[in-house]
Amino acid sequence: MRDIGTLLEALPFIREFHGRTVVIKYGGAAMEDANLREEFARDVVLLKYVGMNPVIVHGGGPDITEYMERLGLPVEFIGGLRRSDPATVEVAKMVLVGKVNKDIVLRLGRLGQPAVGLCGDDGMMLTAERVPGPNGEDLGNVGRIVNVSTGVLDHVAEDYIPVIASVAPDASGDSMNVNADEAASAVARALGAYKAVFLTDVPGWLSDPEDQTSVVSEATASEVESRLSTVSGGMVPKLTACIEAVRGAVGSAHIIDGRVEHSLLLELFTVEGVGTKIVPDR
Amino acid sequence: MRDIGTLLEALPFIREFHGRTVVIKYGGAAMEDANLREEFARDVVLLKYVGMNPVIVHGGGPDITEYMERLGLPVEFIGGLRRSDPATVEVAKMVLVGKVNKDIVLRLGRLGQPAVGLCGDDGMMLTAERVPGPNGEDLGNVGRIVNVSTGVLDHVAEDYIPVIASVAPDASGDSMNVNADEAASAVARALGAYKAVFLTDVPGWLSDPEDQTSVVSEATASEVESRLSTVSGGMVPKLTACIEAVRGAVGSAHIIDGRVEHSLLLELFTVEGVGTKIVPDR
Amino acid sequence: MRDIGTLLEALPFIREFHGRTVVIKYGGAAMEDANLREEFARDVVLLKYVGMNPVIVHGGGPDITEYMERLGLPVEFIGGLRRSDPATVEVAKMVLVGKVNKDIVLRLGRLGQPAVGLCGDDGMMLTAERVPGPNGEDLGNVGRIVNVSTGVLDHVAEDYIPVIASVAPDASGDSMNVNADEAASAVARALGAYKAVFLTDVPGWLSDPEDQTSVVSEATASEVESRLSTVSGGMVPKLTACIEAVRGAVGSAHIIDGRVEHSLLLELFTVEGVGTKIVPDR
Amino acid sequence: MRDIGTLLEALPFIREFHGRTVVIKYGGAAMEDANLREEFARDVVLLKYVGMNPVIVHGGGPDITEYMERLGLPVEFIGGLRRSDPATVEVAKMVLVGKVNKDIVLRLGRLGQPAVGLCGDDGMMLTAERVPGPNGEDLGNVGRIVNVSTGVLDHVAEDYIPVIASVAPDASGDSMNVNADEAASAVARALGAYKAVFLTDVPGWLSDPEDQTSVVSEATASEVESRLSTVSGGMVPKLTACIEAVRGAVGSAHIIDGRVEHSLLLELFTVEGVGTKIVPDR
Amino acid sequence: MRDIGTLLEALPFIREFHGRTVVIKYGGAAMEDANLREEFARDVVLLKYVGMNPVIVHGGGPDITEYMERLGLPVEFIGGLRRSDPATVEVAKMVLVGKVNKDIVLRLGRLGQPAVGLCGDDGMMLTAERVPGPNGEDLGNVGRIVNVSTGVLDHVAEDYIPVIASVAPDASGDSMNVNADEAASAVARALGAYKAVFLTDVPGWLSDPEDQTSVVSEATASEVESRLSTVSGGMVPKLTACIEAVRGAVGSAHIIDGRVEHSLLLELFTVEGVGTKIVPDR
Amino acid sequence: MRDIGTLLEALPFIREFHGRTVVIKYGGAAMEDANLREEFARDVVLLKYVGMNPVIVHGGGPDITEYMERLGLPVEFIGGLRRSDPATVEVAKMVLVGKVNKDIVLRLGRLGQPAVGLCGDDGMMLTAERVPGPNGEDLGNVGRIVNVSTGVLDHVAEDYIPVIASVAPDASGDSMNVNADEAASAVARALGAYKAVFLTDVPGWLSDPEDQTSVVSEATASEVESRLSTVSGGMVPKLTACIEAVRGAVGSAHIIDGRVEHSLLLELFTVEGVGTKIVPDR
Repeated sequence: MRDIGTLLEALPFIREFHGRTVVIKYGGAAMEDANLREEFARDVVLLKYVGMNPVIVHGGGPDITEYMERLGLPVEFIGGLRRSDPATVEVAKMVLVGKVNKDIVLRLGRLGQPAVGLCGDDGMMLTAERVPGPNGEDLGNVGRIVNVSTGVLDHVAEDYIPVIASVAPDASGDSMNVNADEAASAVARALGAYKAVFLTDVPGWLSDPEDQTSVVSEATASEVESRLSTVSGGMVPKLTACIEAVRGAVGSAHIIDGRVEHSLLLELFTVEGVGTKIVPDR
Repeated sequence: MRDIGTLLEALPFIREFHGRTVVIKYGGAAMEDANLREEFARDVVLLKYVGMNPVIVHGGGPDITEYMERLGLPVEFIGGLRRSDPATVEVAKMVLVGKVNKDIVLRLGRLGQPAVGLCGDDGMMLTAERVPGPNGEDLGNVGRIVNVSTGVLDHVAEDYIPVIASVAPDASGDSMNVNADEAASAVARALGAYKAVFLTDVPGWLSDPEDQTSVVSEATASEVESRLSTVSGGMVPKLTACIEAVRGAVGSAHIIDGRVEHSLLLELFTVEGVGTKIVPDR
Repeated sequence: MRDIGTLLEALPFIREFHGRTVVIKYGGAAMEDANLREEFARDVVLLKYVGMNPVIVHGGGPDITEYMERLGLPVEFIGGLRRSDPATVEVAKMVLVGKVNKDIVLRLGRLGQPAVGLCGDDGMMLTAERVPGPNGEDLGNVGRIVNVSTGVLDHVAEDYIPVIASVAPDASGDSMNVNADEAASAVARALGAYKAVFLTDVPGWLSDPEDQTSVVSEATASEVESRLSTVSGGMVPKLTACIEAVRGAVGSAHIIDGRVEHSLLLELFTVEGVGTKIVPDR
Repeated sequence: MRDIGTLLEALPFIREFHGRTVVIKYGGAAMEDANLREEFARDVVLLKYVGMNPVIVHGGGPDITEYMERLGLPVEFIGGLRRSDPATVEVAKMVLVGKVNKDIVLRLGRLGQPAVGLCGDDGMMLTAERVPGPNGEDLGNVGRIVNVSTGVLDHVAEDYIPVIASVAPDASGDSMNVNADEAASAVARALGAYKAVFLTDVPGWLSDPEDQTSVVSEATASEVESRLSTVSGGMVPKLTACIEAVRGAVGSAHIIDGRVEHSLLLELFTVEGVGTKIVPDR
Repeated sequence: MRDIGTLLEALPFIREFHGRTVVIKYGGAAMEDANLREEFARDVVLLKYVGMNPVIVHGGGPDITEYMERLGLPVEFIGGLRRSDPATVEVAKMVLVGKVNKDIVLRLGRLGQPAVGLCGDDGMMLTAERVPGPNGEDLGNVGRIVNVSTGVLDHVAEDYIPVIASVAPDASGDSMNVNADEAASAVARALGAYKAVFLTDVPGWLSDPEDQTSVVSEATASEVESRLSTVSGGMVPKLTACIEAVRGAVGSAHIIDGRVEHSLLLELFTVEGVGTKIVPDR
Repeated sequence: MRDIGTLLEALPFIREFHGRTVVIKYGGAAMEDANLREEFARDVVLLKYVGMNPVIVHGGGPDITEYMERLGLPVEFIGGLRRSDPATVEVAKMVLVGKVNKDIVLRLGRLGQPAVGLCGDDGMMLTAERVPGPNGEDLGNVGRIVNVSTGVLDHVAEDYIPVIASVAPDASGDSMNVNADEAASAVARALGAYKAVFLTDVPGWLSDPEDQTSVVSEATASEVESRLSTVSGGMVPKLTACIEAVRGAVGSAHIIDGRVEHSLLLELFTVEGVGTKIVPDR
């Protein structure tokens, strides 16, 4: 006899999530490894199958740097942020919007689930404003989201999977690079998403950074906030994005390991989950 | 890592079945054994959770005979059919409608899924006509379904689980006992159900009646029909009900083992299934 | 020339009542006499014809006692309430739900107006809690209504006539006998009915119990309440049900003589009416 | 006890007619006698009360002649038709549209049922073409209806009672006098009315014109047509209008006595009726 | 190359006004001159073409006096108001409703845009109360609007152009003459119109009554009010109607020169306009 | 007094075009000249203002070649078609989708009219198949449209202006360069557009290619087809696109001079137009 424990466990979640929006920050290994890329697309299509409305937000990664180098443009990072003069942003935007984004769109489409690729320009969806570097450096066209207008998403998110590239104009129409974790959090808040899920290349938020098995299974926003000073590296912006999400009416935020196949489904459809779940303060 | 094979396998079925109607003939061990009764109710509620519209059709069984005996009424069967004078039908109807039916309704309700108990009288749903016994005997008020009016079901089946007792008036308003397999098939056809599932106390349709492992996994209506003369006992009306169902626009008919926990879910949500699936001729 | 005074008088009421709900407590002679039974059904169908939404609530009466006796079960009344051990309730429920209720449903259906028979179990419509006898006696499974959920009625009451048997589960799922006057009043309040009408075997509320012509034509809830201590017998629960109805947003409550043909129509569609009308305090 | 025979008889008709359109040609004594005028208005309002959609079509009568004479204009009739030069039509239209029509509208409004007064000009509802007199005389601006556009009626007839004056423009925009019987029949056909009712000053169509009791209770269009040559006077255009109505999808046409109070209600709501009912050929 | 400046200028207004209601008080030269009458009708049809909902309110003028004289009725004006005994009002109403109103309706209809002629009687749209003359004289049936019920307009104004004659019943059903400027303002307020436009026979509100070029292009309600004592003649009721309109939720009120072709379009669709625009106080 | 001839002339067209779709092939000088670019965007926004649904289809032009050269990729044209190996298409797609397209989207957005940038990948909108060069050369990833799925456009075209880059996947998911004239024609046919407008850098279709004033104002598809062999250069694919459009249910196709300001408005909103209008055969 087949073991249907996972199915029995999943069915109530499937009911709970029906018609709900889940915003997924996509990046890292799950975007770079060919096999994980395909499995991720399949899992997202399955979410759509069972009645959820997934929205993907993604950044760029290695492709941008590769084109920069081919074009002989300087590549410079300050505090993890890419220094972005107008020529750099033009290239970054072309790669993000014209290549990475459409690759995801086509992959979902070939699996039978039409998707629509968008960036902040479309329907005036995202508005950014320029921000300096961590020490006040001029980073050029690097921005943070100051407004999300969900109109276009409201038009397409029921029948298509929106795929959003994290680039946005500022008030004067200049394009800005925007951190994709932050963009995902902002979109999730604006949509009143049920969940925001951030794919990473670690197992979750570790109580002991040295111990890969020390994943914190669940924590409130305040618990995370109180320990934020002890965290370092790329986990800081992710945790910050999670805190802002659940404080902005998102039901819960999740940090999961994009290197593990089906981690998305396991986090959503099992009682225990596989990563870190951050919930609003009670 | 959890095995999520069953879940991955089930998700496309969940999508396929969303909003679809499945008519379930309920009876036998799954109705008489306290544990199976509870598990069956849970499984039906899970079907509702994931967006299907289950409709239950049931007969009576031992309870009727027990009350007949307590009331000193004669109990007589001819060719598997209960001889039903008006006094017998009155008792049978009271037990079916006032006890067995409402027990099912209450059990579903306690699991958080409201149900509505009905019989052929309600909304003039079923009309029967009197039929003689296999050798022309006068069986009294025993009938076969000649009309199904789905109005009431259309009003409630989206938000409630209809539970239907197999008793129906004839054109002059006299109540008739009706075979529950036949009633389930007729209701499934009238609703244009996606599936009709018949719970039995055997593993399915056996190609060799002596060999419990010889379950026919799938067959067309014509294949079943061509071998019907080799079948005996209670399997005959069930196979006939299946043939009529799939020839009447029901997507497929299934005979499953009600003695096995979750056989309903395994049949519906796994590629291989666990019983016999009868499909329209190609 | 035909006298059309009654018609002219009725038309404005027909307009006033269009689309309104009227809950009718059915019982007594109008349920036991074959001719009155038929006329009552016709009158209810006419109400539906002219756009009202009648809802019938009924108890059981002699049929229950008859089956109790045939089954050799003890029949015992305390303060007008039937002592109800589980075996008694099972029989009472079978008779109420499986016989009396469906007889009404079939009679309406044969007059061309489909009806749906329900009890408190259906759609979790009624919830009861156990009550002791007038002197604290243990009456067994005798209850009073503590919650009404109108979901199922909202689904069917526009296109069908709901016929409700006064039996309801308590919180743990045990079936309780419930007084039908009280059940009718509770259902009327929950539906925000325009009118609640109680059929009795007397001409109405008599200011002088010895004088059948002393019917009080109209009174406010407070007027009735102030004189309730002078009333005796079955009129007490009826008047109490009326007071609770009009204090719970029901437009008016009526006590009429079920022994008189068409008393229902005369009460509703003539200026003077024929029974007692109880209205909210001004 | 009140006699409610008429009410019982009427209720099925009230159901049958619910939401149906009845076009009423109004004129004669019922328009000229102050008491009948008021009773007619009440009856029409009652029709609206019980869910019918009455539409009134009327002509002018004595008021026009009175104003013609006060203005010193010649009054001339040829074969029952008013010779209508442009000056005459201007006066006739002012009286019909600006006085008679609005009197009816105001009377209905004061009874609590808003009405809307219209003529053929409004919404381009009626288009007429010039017709000669019976012997080819030039009658001036006298026309017959060649087109009915029900747009405006479709907008208002559910919530208001349309009151239509029988005047209509021809294709070049000149106003034409139109026979009101013919206009009522044309409007009824265009609306697919359930009934067209013509008020007259006789008891109905008499099989013996000398015998006021010889009213033909019911006849088919062909029966009327075959005897039309034996009819004389104003009954000819009325019978012709009836024949055209029932041959043009109107359910039935009725000729009733406008001098009798409530004849409209008696015809519609009693089995026997009081005038002549003309039905389509079987 | 064609000059399309006016078109470019107009397009944003066309967008702004789409679906908006504009109430137009029609009278004076634009109603009396045959050419202006035709051009006015064309312009109103164009407004409808581009998605606005024009509503026309008109008075009577010379036609009434002409008929009064032909009928030998005394013509008397007190402070610019016509003394109106019942016979006078009957004639005025016939002319207004049965002639002037329908002429406008037919003219619009011939241009391809169906219109519906109404007066205060229709749908109980307007209710008036009797007012004395400026010095307390008894003017007879002269009234001011005390209630507007927009029901009929809500039913027809999207698909037809309502044309409203300024006559209205008082509470007892007697017809009253009503000033058309005042009626237009009352209708505009009740409809929450975007604009109210008053056609006059002067270029607008002149800051120097002697200087036809001194048109005040725009003013607030308070600015107009503070200078109202310096105004004389027919401009007083117009300015008062404008003040009341913009204080009653009408977006703006306009006084324009009906003697100039297309002044309506020029006022609405050019930045500068051609008359006086009165706006709410800021 | 202002000349409002153009406005009066335009209003009936504005009515005619309300709610209609117009597909505009955008390219040439109107895309390369900064001033014309801004004026074109303004004109498109005005079309949206007055209720039309413009859809823009564009190609790439000089930007692609520039990036090819910066990346050291070979630029080669065969018969006017760019030889497109996968590396070339990747760059072309990035420029088209990530730069040119979003520039148009942002420009419309800054004028207050949100737009949505799309390419053939989005919602599986366009499917292409590989085509050889005019002499059978292997052009690489150059394709022609074989299917248009309008789903995404149906979701957004009412509230946004869709801007479509002419790149599309083939059945195996490889991106193809597609001629923008052909893409515009295919989209117009699939949408059942009212008009398809092609911007060029000539005054229209010239009957004498040497004479810039010899613009053919209007021609049928067959007239164009019969003279197609006399045409040369870039006008051939444009005329072919026009013929296919009007033979595929598009109301009319227009070739206009993108170098002239407001040529789009002049063609659509004046009686004479400014370019060549191609209509279906009569």
